[in-house]
Amino acid sequence: MNAALAALKRVCLIGSGNWGSAIAKIVGLNVMNQPDVFEKEVLMYVYEEIIDGAKLTDIINLEHENVKYLPDIKISPNVIAVPDVVQACTNADILIFVLPHQFVKETCEKMASAVKPGALGLSLIKGFVLTEGEGIQLVSNIIKNTLDIETAVLMGANLATEVASEMFCETTIACHNPEYHGILSKLFQTPYFRVKVIENVAGVEACGALKNVVGIGAGIVDGLGFGDNTKAAVIRLGLMEMMKFTKVFLESDDISVFFESCGIADLVATCHGGRNRLLGEAVVKSMKDIRLLEKEILRGQSFQGPLIAKEIYTYLKDHDMLDQYPLFVAIHRICTREVDPRNFIECLREHPEHM
Amino acid sequence: MNAALAALKRVCLIGSGNWGSAIAKIVGLNVMNQPDVFEKEVLMYVYEEIIDGAKLTDIINLEHENVKYLPDIKISPNVIAVPDVVQACTNADILIFVLPHQFVKETCEKMASAVKPGALGLSLIKGFVLTEGEGIQLVSNIIKNTLDIETAVLMGANLATEVASEMFCETTIACHNPEYHGILSKLFQTPYFRVKVIENVAGVEACGALKNVVGIGAGIVDGLGFGDNTKAAVIRLGLMEMMKFTKVFLESDDISVFFESCGIADLVATCHGGRNRLLGEAVVKSMKDIRLLEKEILRGQSFQGPLIAKEIYTYLKDHDMLDQYPLFVAIHRICTREVDPRNFIECLREHPEHM
Repeated sequence: MNAALAALKRVCLIGSGNWGSAIAKIVGLNVMNQPDVFEKEVLMYVYEEIIDGAKLTDIINLEHENVKYLPDIKISPNVIAVPDVVQACTNADILIFVLPHQFVKETCEKMASAVKPGALGLSLIKGFVLTEGEGIQLVSNIIKNTLDIETAVLMGANLATEVASEMFCETTIACHNPEYHGILSKLFQTPYFRVKVIENVAGVEACGALKNVVGIGAGIVDGLGFGDNTKAAVIRLGLMEMMKFTKVFLESDDISVFFESCGIADLVATCHGGRNRLLGEAVVKSMKDIRLLEKEILRGQSFQGPLIAKEIYTYLKDHDMLDQYPLFVAIHRICTREVDPRNFIECLREHPEHM
Repeated sequence: MNAALAALKRVCLIGSGNWGSAIAKIVGLNVMNQPDVFEKEVLMYVYEEIIDGAKLTDIINLEHENVKYLPDIKISPNVIAVPDVVQACTNADILIFVLPHQFVKETCEKMASAVKPGALGLSLIKGFVLTEGEGIQLVSNIIKNTLDIETAVLMGANLATEVASEMFCETTIACHNPEYHGILSKLFQTPYFRVKVIENVAGVEACGALKNVVGIGAGIVDGLGFGDNTKAAVIRLGLMEMMKFTKVFLESDDISVFFESCGIADLVATCHGGRNRLLGEAVVKSMKDIRLLEKEILRGQSFQGPLIAKEIYTYLKDHDMLDQYPLFVAIHRICTREVDPRNFIECLREHPEHM
């Protein structure tokens, strides 16, 4: 094998929900179209399920479509679904993580012995990891520490079904090491998916997690029958709390990240078209438990927002800062039914922003 | 007359469209409820029109409702409509301007000899004033220079019909002189309309004007059938151009204003529920001229967005900066039919933000 071939990058995907499948479509095609940069085959770890008597991996490999989570969207045939996460990651140079955040740690532990030293991780996961006694951590840190690899992130105003339909949007990739910026851009950029690569990994990731909580708030406002002004106030107050939380949690004053796609753009898209917005609306309009709403609305996938709201609440409580974040706190308490959603506006009226 | 009575502030409103009428409702009630601070009577200048055979001023004074521009909303009876702008402003201590921006200069010129020295102006007007040979100026500067009075501004995520329906929202007031901050807050704050007062008048005003242009862009995206991701990208790129334009035009580096209600919140509300968004959508879906669309959609009121887009375009052209603002330029050219709206996304794909 000559040096040029040896340098080809092998890419794998860990996860295959609707966002994982939408990203598989982009990555599959970009890898296929750049044979001088990437190895052609992309293995995708799929949590095996039986759909109408057939294995989901078999369906994907035969029909090149994730019929359960992203129906009617064709994935390029060089993306091969495998039910074994160790097989998926073996020999890969770039590992793209796109799982629900509560499964990251155990999945990384399974992969640990198989991951190639010097591989690059890339997390598309929105959330924090809450560990008893250790508080909350960034998902990228869990990946980095468990696998001992550099880990980048990708976050943006990227509602999965719209990306899959090739509607124009932007995204933000963050990677500490500028040497990887070019290849990450090559892996994701398309005419309809515009990539900007920056270095602030933690800031981008915090945006991606926190906006899901604000999205629930936007849904509550919709459920209560308020209009665009009220929703805009919730988005703005949410952004203020996101910025303040990020500053305290990450000990960073860099606000430029909030002007990237991962910041206000993703916040706005989430508050209008995201699944956590749907949840917030449903919480007001029905008295059903959140787990039941998940089953009804998401066909088995989970809402990340309530989990993230709980993680943030735990952090704020531990740091005696609940009173400084009335929006985050109200959303958590509405999700747990401690507070009636009809009191949401009362929680905001005397926000510290107005004092 | 004793010193306490002499100190009572007399308030007038110059303008009575839907936003003027919504604000008359707030101001009328606040003035009535604070007799130790304000004189009870608020004169409101109404451009006289005949509605079903009756004068609009008479209808407002009898029914306490602006049946043409804000039907079904009661204005407090201490707000008296007058058809004469000189009568409205005589003896007033606080003059609230809420007219279409193209009428500001001539209206101020009419008022000039009657305005009380030392009065405070407050502009709720979104736009710039373009004068042949003098370029574009802030509306607050026109008021300030024509009347020789200090002029503050009020801008925020305040779609008029929602404010009139008492849906919770925020607003931003800016006034250079901190001595006025308390009284401005007393004049506008209500349980549903939350006021924050800052000092950056020009920054707040620029936000209020520029967001109308971006609002047209959001409407174009809706008209083209794109989703929340694309709209979020337009909002973000619009915000980038707003920040850059404000920096150049006002020679100011203060970005904090974009985090107030007048900034991202108003931008988001405008891009989802504003009249310029409606226009953008109509421009794509019909081939009708903008003036015809105004008549059909706005019952005789005018869209400010296309005018502002033209003013900005003129400024950018004069300063040889068209290539740095592809979103503003594309929106102007789509409004004038120089560019087909279907090319909008092409104009954004290679935005300087992505280079």
